[in-house]
Amino acid sequence: MTDSIIPAPAEPVLHNYFRSSTSYRVRIALALKGVAYAYEAYHLRKGEQRSERYLALNAQGLVPTLRWTDGHLYTQSLAIIEFLDETIPNPSLLPKDPAERARVRSLAQMIAIDIHPINNLRVLTELRRRFGADDAAVADWFRHWVDETFAALEHRLAVEPGTGLFCHGDHPSLADICLAAQVANNGRFGVEMAPYPTIQRIYDRCMTLPAFISAAPGNQPDAE
Amino acid sequence: MTDSIIPAPAEPVLHNYFRSSTSYRVRIALALKGVAYAYEAYHLRKGEQRSERYLALNAQGLVPTLRWTDGHLYTQSLAIIEFLDETIPNPSLLPKDPAERARVRSLAQMIAIDIHPINNLRVLTELRRRFGADDAAVADWFRHWVDETFAALEHRLAVEPGTGLFCHGDHPSLADICLAAQVANNGRFGVEMAPYPTIQRIYDRCMTLPAFISAAPGNQPDAE
Repeated sequence: MTDSIIPAPAEPVLHNYFRSSTSYRVRIALALKGVAYAYEAYHLRKGEQRSERYLALNAQGLVPTLRWTDGHLYTQSLAIIEFLDETIPNPSLLPKDPAERARVRSLAQMIAIDIHPINNLRVLTELRRRFGADDAAVADWFRHWVDETFAALEHRLAVEPGTGLFCHGDHPSLADICLAAQVANNGRFGVEMAPYPTIQRIYDRCMTLPAFISAAPGNQPDAE
Repeated sequence: MTDSIIPAPAEPVLHNYFRSSTSYRVRIALALKGVAYAYEAYHLRKGEQRSERYLALNAQGLVPTLRWTDGHLYTQSLAIIEFLDETIPNPSLLPKDPAERARVRSLAQMIAIDIHPINNLRVLTELRRRFGADDAAVADWFRHWVDETFAALEHRLAVEPGTGLFCHGDHPSLADICLAAQVANNGRFGVEMAPYPTIQRIYDRCMTLPAFISAAPGNQPDAE
């Protein structure tokens, strides 16, 4: 949290961008928890996340930021989702048992740490600027890091007994939230999903749930 | 966790590499918790993390992996540290209050998500291979991502009232673990620390603690 002099809002405000997959994660969690919120959009390609207005909310200039009903500002999508899970316990996004929690967190972090940050817009922009990477080189870079991790993720989900209808058991968790946002993002860079039938099966299952559908990039007010 | 047919060990086994900062994080947490463990080294520059033996422990081929006394394999440094904190509560590495927990996790994730994955050895290797980046270009890339996040981290730590002797209050937390491992790593790429006096102050404080010292890269059996 970050302290703020602005009074606590009547409803939470999500500062985000429709296409950002970290924003998508938080939208899914809010929808699963049944939390209504105000939607504030910042257009990343226009650099609105670097505006003075947004930097006052989030010194990193990265989306999303959640202003909660306590008036505090919460940043970093995984930290926000764990906060929501700790303050609104049902439906739970993590199992109760520490070993199972570690499994869910490790699956989530394979995506949230080992794929997404390397393929974020700001990194792809630096590849173009520093090394003259063109669209094809950028797309190949994106697919490389997805494939590196998805091969291991597919293996784990296929062989570990914890996997059920979702990444862990038969209810959506933090891991499914990260998985769904990543798979949705992959389509823009032509990632071939055929080698990942278990990931695809779980993604398809997620996309039958109203929370995942309503939170999807295409269903946001700023969608293009 | 990942299931395994190998019997539960009498003591935990940490599969890791002295210079890996994700390994360093887990070593600090184990030391703070007072856990004795066996040390198994994998030389990343020799590709030992890609050996059949290691891939059987960790399908991603990334260090660290912790085989716990329950026989399970735990991966992803942040998930491992939260597991340790949930199973060995004292000393706690996260506050009790959800808003404070969110603050500590968000500070940790600024480093663990927005810096480290982009500057990991495997990414730097791809910059060389794909774009012909030389030592100077690689070092400049490394410093760029540290500076992007450290500017915001310094601001948060300097202005937010939660900061104390450490990132949050007067005891080391998950955030300090990530901070210390990152600052230690920065030295190899010539990151200038003068703009970050609060980060430097907290790092210096961490390095007065035996747990941080004993876990440091230079004090491991495979140190070069």
